[in-house]
Amino acid sequence: MHKQTTNGHSVAKTNRLETLFPLLAWLKTYQRETLISDSIAGLIVAIMLVPQGMAYAFLAGLPPQMGLYAGIVPLFIYGLLGSSRSLAVGPVAIASLMVGEAVSQHAQAGTELYLATAMVLALLVGIILLLMYLLRLGSLVNFLSHSVITGFTSAAALMIAVSQIKYVLGLEFPRGHGFPETLGNLIGHIPQTSLITLMLALSAFAVMWFSKNHLATVLAKLGCSGLLAGSIAKAGPMFAIVLGVALVELFQLDQAYGVSVVGDIPAGLPAFHLLPVDLSWWQSLLPAALLIALVGFLESVSVGTALASKRRERIKPDRELVALGFANLGAAFTGAYPVAGGFGRSMVNDASGAQTTVASLITATGLALTVLFFTPWFYSPPKAVLGVIVIMAVLPLIDLSGIKSTWRFNRADALTLIVTFAMVLIAGVEIGLLSGVALSIALLLQRNSHPHIAIVGRVGDSEHFRNIKRFDVKTNPCCLGLRIDENLYFANTRYIEDEVMAVVAEQPQLQHLVIICSAISFIDASALETLEMLKDNLQESGVTLHLADVKGPVMDQLKQTRFIEHLAPGQVYLSTHEAMRDLCDL
Amino acid sequence: MHKQTTNGHSVAKTNRLETLFPLLAWLKTYQRETLISDSIAGLIVAIMLVPQGMAYAFLAGLPPQMGLYAGIVPLFIYGLLGSSRSLAVGPVAIASLMVGEAVSQHAQAGTELYLATAMVLALLVGIILLLMYLLRLGSLVNFLSHSVITGFTSAAALMIAVSQIKYVLGLEFPRGHGFPETLGNLIGHIPQTSLITLMLALSAFAVMWFSKNHLATVLAKLGCSGLLAGSIAKAGPMFAIVLGVALVELFQLDQAYGVSVVGDIPAGLPAFHLLPVDLSWWQSLLPAALLIALVGFLESVSVGTALASKRRERIKPDRELVALGFANLGAAFTGAYPVAGGFGRSMVNDASGAQTTVASLITATGLALTVLFFTPWFYSPPKAVLGVIVIMAVLPLIDLSGIKSTWRFNRADALTLIVTFAMVLIAGVEIGLLSGVALSIALLLQRNSHPHIAIVGRVGDSEHFRNIKRFDVKTNPCCLGLRIDENLYFANTRYIEDEVMAVVAEQPQLQHLVIICSAISFIDASALETLEMLKDNLQESGVTLHLADVKGPVMDQLKQTRFIEHLAPGQVYLSTHEAMRDLCDL
Repeated sequence: MHKQTTNGHSVAKTNRLETLFPLLAWLKTYQRETLISDSIAGLIVAIMLVPQGMAYAFLAGLPPQMGLYAGIVPLFIYGLLGSSRSLAVGPVAIASLMVGEAVSQHAQAGTELYLATAMVLALLVGIILLLMYLLRLGSLVNFLSHSVITGFTSAAALMIAVSQIKYVLGLEFPRGHGFPETLGNLIGHIPQTSLITLMLALSAFAVMWFSKNHLATVLAKLGCSGLLAGSIAKAGPMFAIVLGVALVELFQLDQAYGVSVVGDIPAGLPAFHLLPVDLSWWQSLLPAALLIALVGFLESVSVGTALASKRRERIKPDRELVALGFANLGAAFTGAYPVAGGFGRSMVNDASGAQTTVASLITATGLALTVLFFTPWFYSPPKAVLGVIVIMAVLPLIDLSGIKSTWRFNRADALTLIVTFAMVLIAGVEIGLLSGVALSIALLLQRNSHPHIAIVGRVGDSEHFRNIKRFDVKTNPCCLGLRIDENLYFANTRYIEDEVMAVVAEQPQLQHLVIICSAISFIDASALETLEMLKDNLQESGVTLHLADVKGPVMDQLKQTRFIEHLAPGQVYLSTHEAMRDLCDL
Repeated sequence: MHKQTTNGHSVAKTNRLETLFPLLAWLKTYQRETLISDSIAGLIVAIMLVPQGMAYAFLAGLPPQMGLYAGIVPLFIYGLLGSSRSLAVGPVAIASLMVGEAVSQHAQAGTELYLATAMVLALLVGIILLLMYLLRLGSLVNFLSHSVITGFTSAAALMIAVSQIKYVLGLEFPRGHGFPETLGNLIGHIPQTSLITLMLALSAFAVMWFSKNHLATVLAKLGCSGLLAGSIAKAGPMFAIVLGVALVELFQLDQAYGVSVVGDIPAGLPAFHLLPVDLSWWQSLLPAALLIALVGFLESVSVGTALASKRRERIKPDRELVALGFANLGAAFTGAYPVAGGFGRSMVNDASGAQTTVASLITATGLALTVLFFTPWFYSPPKAVLGVIVIMAVLPLIDLSGIKSTWRFNRADALTLIVTFAMVLIAGVEIGLLSGVALSIALLLQRNSHPHIAIVGRVGDSEHFRNIKRFDVKTNPCCLGLRIDENLYFANTRYIEDEVMAVVAEQPQLQHLVIICSAISFIDASALETLEMLKDNLQESGVTLHLADVKGPVMDQLKQTRFIEHLAPGQVYLSTHEAMRDLCDL
C-alpha cells in the first residue's frame, strides 16, 4: 500500500501514524485522477445528504440544521480516522428514529432540553464506541444475528414510514407513544387529510421517482455523458426539496392553505457547544445510547466490509470504533446528533467513484458551504416533502421476503425474525431489539442443550467403536461406552447427566461406564461439577466411571483440578479400544 | 415397580393415574416397614421445620405462623403429586430472602398489604411453574451455570447471615435497602449491643452446636439406640426455640430487659384466603416471581436428582414443575408464602429413611398438629434465637472455596462466579442473578465466536488433508482448502468472514477457495447469509467459492434454499480430495 523506507525506526513510526490516520497511507499514492474521482463522489453524496440530513433530523424531532451539522464536523473527523475508503458517515434513518424515541421520553419536543438531550446522546454514543475500542468489545455486535437485524430493521423502517404519513397527508396530532398508538391516531385522522399537502407530497414523490428510475436515461438520450447523467439523477431528493420550497413560496401555501413547513434554517457554521454535565440524566440515557452505538456500529461495519471486499481489502473494525466514536463526539460538541455510516449513501459514494476518505472531506465541505451560503434555497421546507424523502429512503429496508425460506431453512431463525419484528412494533425499538437478542440466544442454547449421545460397540475385531443403533457391533452388558458429541458446558450438563443416569437405570448389570470424549474440546466448571456428581452418584449405585479419548487441551484442563484423583478407581484411557479391552473383555 | 395386569386398557389407565400421582405406584408395594421408616423421617423433618418455618418467615418479614402454614397444605399437595421420594418441600432460606426483598419494595412491613403481597407472590410462582410445565420450559434452568449458582447462593447466604446479626445483637434499626446499607447500619449500631440478647443467642447457638456435633454420641453412650440418638440430635433448633421461649418467660426478658420477641402465634389451622385480583400489581411482582420460581425449581430438582440417583432412580423434572406449581398455589390460598424443595431438610429426610412422599404427608400432619395444639410452646419466640437458627442454616451455603481451582480450570467461570457474587451483594439478588446469567452467556458466545480455522494441504499422495502449520503438506497458490472447526452461527459468522477475507487478501494468485465442512453440523440463517455474501465478495475479487465434505443434515438444510444454485460456478464436492484434485491439480 505504501513504500517502505530502509530506516526501520522511521518505518515503525510512519506505520503507527498511518494506523491512526489511514488517510495518510492513501495520500502517498494520491493522484490527480483520484482527487477528481473522490470530488465527484463527495459532491454527489453532499447533494444527497442536504435533503436527507434535514429529513432525518425532522424524523428525530430536531430542527433541520441539526441534520446538516451532523454532516460537517463528524465527516471531517471520519475522513481523517476512518479505515473504510468509501463509507459515507452522517445522520441515518434508524438511528434518527431511535434518537427521537429516546429523547422524547426525557424532554418535550421543541424545547432547548430536547436539543441538548440529543447532543448528550451523541456524546454518550461516542464515549461508548471508544470504550468498546478500549475494552476490545467490538465483538458485541456478534450478539445480533441476521434474523434479529432483519426483523429489527424491517420493523424500524415500517415505523419510520408510517410515522411520516401524517406529514404527507397534512394531518396534525401529537406524537403517540409507540407504533400502535401512532397507527391508530393516523387512521382516526385520515378524514382531515389536506389535499393541497397531499398533492405537494405526490409531486415530490413524482420528481424523486422519475429521477431515480428514468432521469439518467433521458439525460443520456439528450446527449449528456453517462457519468454526469447518473450524478444528476441522484439529486432527486434535492430537486424535490427545491421544488417544494419554490411551490410554497410561489403560492404562499403555508399561509394561504395551511401547509406545514419546518422552521427556517439559520445560516452559518455550527457553533461549539458545551454540554451540561448531569450524571443521573446521562445515566438514564445510557441504555438508549448503548443500543444506538451498537446498531450504528453494526450498520457501518457491515456496509464498510461489503464495500472493502470488492477491492480485496478489509476495514479494521477497531479503527472504525475509534473513527465513529470521535465522529460522534464531534457531533455532540457542534450541535448535531448521533451519526453512523449509512447504507444507501455509502453505496452511492462507492458507485460514484470514492477512492479514499477525501470524498468524505469533500462532502463535509459541501455541507459547510451549504449552511454558510445556501440556506435561503431551503427556506422553510414543507414537512410533506421531508416525509416523502424519508419514506423513499427507508422503504427498501423493509425486507420480510426471506421469512418463508428462512422458515424452511431453520425454524428458530424464522421465529426470531418474526418475534423481533413484532416486538419492535408493539413494545418499541429498544425492548424489541433486546427481546430479539434474548430469544436468539435462548434458542441457540436450547438447541445446544440436547447434544447427540450414542452408545457404542466394537465393530468386528477392529479398534473402531460405532453407534449401536446404526452398526452391527459387539457390546457387553456389564460395561458401556457412551460417546457425547458436543462440548460439555452449562447449557447441556443437566441433559447429559439425565441421559447418562437413564442409560444406567436401564442396565441393571452395569459395572463400568466409559464416557468417550473424542468430540469434546472444552469442559466448563458446570460440566466438571456434573462429572464429579455423576461419578459419585454412579459409585453409590455400584458403577465406576471412566473416560477415554480425552483430547490434549481438555486433559490439560482436567489436570489443573483434582478430578482425575477423585475419579479413582475409575481411569482415563488413551483410547476407547484400550478402555473396552481392559474393562469389558471386548 | 408395580405389577402389570393383562388388560392393556386398564394398564394404560392405571399408568396414567400413576403418572399424575406417583404416590399411587409407591403405595402398591407399601409395607408396614416402609410406613415406619416414612413416619420417623416425616416426624424428624417436622421437628426441624417448626423452628425453621418460623425463622424463615421472620427472614421474609412475615409473622411466624406463615412459615408454619407453608409446611402444611403445600406438603400435602407435594406428597400427592411429587415424583421425588425424599424431597422435603416447604419454606426455604434463599426464597425467603427473595420474597422479603420483593415484597418490601411494594408494601410496608407489618401491614396487611405486605402479607397479601407475599401470598400473591406464591400464587404467581405457582402459575409460572405450571406455565413452564405447559410450555415445556423446564430447561430454562439450563441458563444457570454452576458458577452463577455458586456465586448467587454464597452471596445470598452471606446477605441472610448478615441480616440476622442485628437480631443476635439485639439492635434496632430499620431494614436497609440492599446489603451495603444493611452492613453499614449494622456496624454503626454495634455499640448499642444488648448483652442479655447476645447471651440468649449464644445459649441458643451452644445448644444447636452441641446437638449437631455431640448429642448423638452422648446419647449413644447413655445407651440410646443409634437411630433414636440421631433423630433427637436433629432437634437442635427445636431445643433452642423451646429454651429461648422458656428463658424469656421465666425471667420476663422481653419486658424487663427489652429482648425482642416475635408476635404471638395464633392457634388453629390456616384459613382459606381469597387473593385480591389487581393485574398491574401482579405484573409488577412478575419479575421477582419468575426468579423465585426458577431458583426454587432449580434447588428442588438438583437435590431431588441427587437423592434419586443414589437409588438408581430418576425424578421427572416435568412432574416436579406440576407438584411444586400446585404446592405454591396451595401456599397462596392458605395464608403461606412461596415454597420449594429445601437442600438441608431433604438430606435429613432421606438420611432419616424417607422411602416415599408419605414422609411429606407425615411432616404436614405434624405441622398441622403443632399449629392446632402446640403453639403455646412457641409463645413469642425471641428474635435472637430465630436469627441464630437462620444463620446456622445458611452458613454451609457460603462456598467460595472453589474460586481458586475454578480460576485455574477456566477463567471465564471464575469471573462469572466473582461477578455474580459481587453483583448480588451490591445490586441485590435479582439484578445480581440476571447479571451472572448474562455474563456467563456472553463469555460462552465470546469463546464460541473465535473458532479454529486451518488452511490444509495434501499429505503426500494420500487422500488426507491436514493443517499446513502442523504437517508437511502440498499446496497450490491458486487454490486453497480452508477447514472451519465449529458450527456456523451468528456468534462466529463475522469472525469467519473476516478470517476468510484476510486469507484471501494475502493470496494474490488465488482463484478457488474450498471451505471444508467436515466439522460443521449446523448452519443458521446468519451463517447462510454470510456464505452468500462471502460468495459474492469473493466473486467480485475473482475467486470462486466451493464447499467440500458437507454432512448429510447440513446438505439437506442447504437444499431447502437456493444457495447451491447461487454458488455456481462454485460447486459442492463430496470430499476434499475430489475438490482439490479437480480444482487445484493437487
